[in-house]
Amino acid sequence: MSSKTLITEFETLLGTDNVISDESGRMSYAYDAAVLEPVLPEVVLRPTTGETLGETIRLCNENNMPVTVRGAGTNLSGGTIPESKGAVVLTNGFNKILEINREDMYAVVQPGVVTAKFAAAVQEQGLFYPPDPGSQAVSTLGGNVAENAGGLRGLKYGVTKDYVMGVDFFDPAGNLIRSGSRTVKSVTGMNLSSLMIGSEGSLGVFNEIILKLVPPPATHRAMMAIYDSVSAASETVAAIIASQIIPCTLEFMDNVTIRAVEDFAHVGLPTDARALLLIEVDGHPAQVAEEAAQVEEICRKMGAVNIRTAKDDAERNSIWEARRAALSALARMRPTTVLEDATVPRSKIPHMVRAVEDIAEKYNLTIGTFGHAGDGNLHPTIMTDRRDKNEWLRVEKAIEDIFDVALSFKGTLSGEHGIGLAKAGFMAKEVGEATLDYCRKMKAALDPKGTLNPGKIIGR
Amino acid sequence: MSSKTLITEFETLLGTDNVISDESGRMSYAYDAAVLEPVLPEVVLRPTTGETLGETIRLCNENNMPVTVRGAGTNLSGGTIPESKGAVVLTNGFNKILEINREDMYAVVQPGVVTAKFAAAVQEQGLFYPPDPGSQAVSTLGGNVAENAGGLRGLKYGVTKDYVMGVDFFDPAGNLIRSGSRTVKSVTGMNLSSLMIGSEGSLGVFNEIILKLVPPPATHRAMMAIYDSVSAASETVAAIIASQIIPCTLEFMDNVTIRAVEDFAHVGLPTDARALLLIEVDGHPAQVAEEAAQVEEICRKMGAVNIRTAKDDAERNSIWEARRAALSALARMRPTTVLEDATVPRSKIPHMVRAVEDIAEKYNLTIGTFGHAGDGNLHPTIMTDRRDKNEWLRVEKAIEDIFDVALSFKGTLSGEHGIGLAKAGFMAKEVGEATLDYCRKMKAALDPKGTLNPGKIIGR
Repeated sequence: MSSKTLITEFETLLGTDNVISDESGRMSYAYDAAVLEPVLPEVVLRPTTGETLGETIRLCNENNMPVTVRGAGTNLSGGTIPESKGAVVLTNGFNKILEINREDMYAVVQPGVVTAKFAAAVQEQGLFYPPDPGSQAVSTLGGNVAENAGGLRGLKYGVTKDYVMGVDFFDPAGNLIRSGSRTVKSVTGMNLSSLMIGSEGSLGVFNEIILKLVPPPATHRAMMAIYDSVSAASETVAAIIASQIIPCTLEFMDNVTIRAVEDFAHVGLPTDARALLLIEVDGHPAQVAEEAAQVEEICRKMGAVNIRTAKDDAERNSIWEARRAALSALARMRPTTVLEDATVPRSKIPHMVRAVEDIAEKYNLTIGTFGHAGDGNLHPTIMTDRRDKNEWLRVEKAIEDIFDVALSFKGTLSGEHGIGLAKAGFMAKEVGEATLDYCRKMKAALDPKGTLNPGKIIGR
Repeated sequence: MSSKTLITEFETLLGTDNVISDESGRMSYAYDAAVLEPVLPEVVLRPTTGETLGETIRLCNENNMPVTVRGAGTNLSGGTIPESKGAVVLTNGFNKILEINREDMYAVVQPGVVTAKFAAAVQEQGLFYPPDPGSQAVSTLGGNVAENAGGLRGLKYGVTKDYVMGVDFFDPAGNLIRSGSRTVKSVTGMNLSSLMIGSEGSLGVFNEIILKLVPPPATHRAMMAIYDSVSAASETVAAIIASQIIPCTLEFMDNVTIRAVEDFAHVGLPTDARALLLIEVDGHPAQVAEEAAQVEEICRKMGAVNIRTAKDDAERNSIWEARRAALSALARMRPTTVLEDATVPRSKIPHMVRAVEDIAEKYNLTIGTFGHAGDGNLHPTIMTDRRDKNEWLRVEKAIEDIFDVALSFKGTLSGEHGIGLAKAGFMAKEVGEATLDYCRKMKAALDPKGTLNPGKIIGR
């Protein structure tokens, strides 16, 4: 079928409003939040039902048109950068919450539901959906599952994969594949829903997602520990975990980040502090009181110069607002922001923080470090200008050094941002060629024409 | 290579003591805990290192000899029943705990480590490995992962899959494939470790497993609620979950089971009770006290005629000893015991209990029902005699009825026992042919000669 006939076919299937083929319209879908070259797709499609979604995928596959499914495009590893001869399939019109089941504590959603809207709807029913990726205000649940998105509460509550009970998805031929269940336990068949999680759209296109919900914690307490030494702060993280307290959230912010956030958001952060820890414990009131006291004691013992405890919800919100502003604040400093997320076993956080400081010095770069210290998942953020070729070369070397250091600590290339295009070339470093071959064989069998988000994770 | 030459080759590789080829020796590995015909394998192999395990798999694959890996053979769905021209590969000599990391709360094990021994070793280090399948005293961690084994604590702590951080495994050609990480968050590459979980040995052979550990609960309280009505007991289960209390364990036992257990174990169960709930809450002492009081109130309100709370560890142990004796006790009653595990959303427990009673009556069978009511995962247990052809036909029909009822409640064929050979024929009922095709394509690509545990899950 000619490209023009195919577009007419899509218009018949989806309605002309849901097919974008003009260049200016397509331009908005050529990039995502990763620092990579944009690629203009041939067409942008917006199915609004499962039937038309399946048919869209089938038509693309039959006509050798690669498909990149896109939620909100907040991807940080190029996972939603399309192919030039390919289609971007939007999920933002396929966004119904189909069921929130209070009795059995699960929900069924279409992939285009926005994460924060879903969390709010769940909260209204007296339940709790913990995964809270940084982009939750706009990110979609489908994107979260495809990327296995993390967030601030990962330490205690886990990440997206810990909340996926089942996924129905289309294979490239448009067949609906079912996996998982509304039951809390199921071992019926191969674990395809888990295979879909983090597969970055390369093995199937989600139709419906079943998500686990939990009772909300009875109470919580947030605090900010202020340090005049980076190592004291990072060693506190390891000490808290070693004491067997699992805070809900345990975040780190270095001085570069603190100053950038304060300059941007004016939330009253101590700009002369070398580092901050932002900590929240939650659960039963008695447990929260005890754990907060223990955490405070550990912070002081490890050298915190001051500890501020949120006295009310407003103060608590301002702590988390400060943390959530970190990336936006850093991104204002220079034209290009590279947000890394190589991750280490959490006891190695002090070593990792030091290593990133050394790398910044070695390559004469400005790196602001913040992130999910309690998970071993820091975000060293390089502020640079991609147009400066000499500096960009140093950035690339610094990134590779960060990977090497993380792997030397038995860490991993990506804790929550995904491999996408950005890290596909580094995969063999961590998992070896045999593992990539195993994945390539699987991909070839399940998507023989290479229709589904080609080039991601395993390269070409 | 002739079969005899191949056996000599295995003897050279593994040592003659680790190659069993005489009939009486092989006989012990012809069956597992499922009610299925035994199949005598051609040879039984016992590698004791990763290198020889990989080489064993490679040799089998090269010589078209199917491989069934076997831990303790406690499988309840025929997952460890071998092929007549195949090898059974034992993991009981490949059973080292390689690392228990206190700081980062994970462990690295070889697949042959016995579950209970591992849990004890972890406890000695002040940590907790929650998954506790019924067969934990002998079952192996490799088997647990291959089957995604459940257990009594699934309600609060989840099942085996919730504790697998990574799996290194051999593909059929003997290549070592790596997946997962020692970090609590990792999205590096396809989610192969999760694909391995519950794949019943059909996609890879485990070399090393990285398991997550958690801090142990500070305290716990166990209690037994006694009912003179089955529906009152089963409705209590739904009421407890609806109240947003998540007990560590919430087990159900009907009168048939109560009498069988008391007759077998003499633990002082009330043999005239129509049903029992065995409940444990754990966590912070204040939370445990509150939750125990709330649970007791709910039980009474829903019609419990008596509630016994364990006053000390001895009384607590006797409650769980009673529960753990259920299967053995029932199994003594008739020559053949069929243990089912079709699972439903937990609010459907009252309906499922009634449906099983109706099915028992319809087919004139004795069915004892007990199990993980809080998970929606009951074990209706049919006491029968397989040699009685007429009765066995009724048993087969009753099993199919149980499946149909569970599926009609949006449940699943198996909550924790696996599909294996026993339920492979019923898979299409739940997931449909397209899903099976998807899995078959995957299997054919990853194991082109069909070496790894053929026939399991997806049939032939």
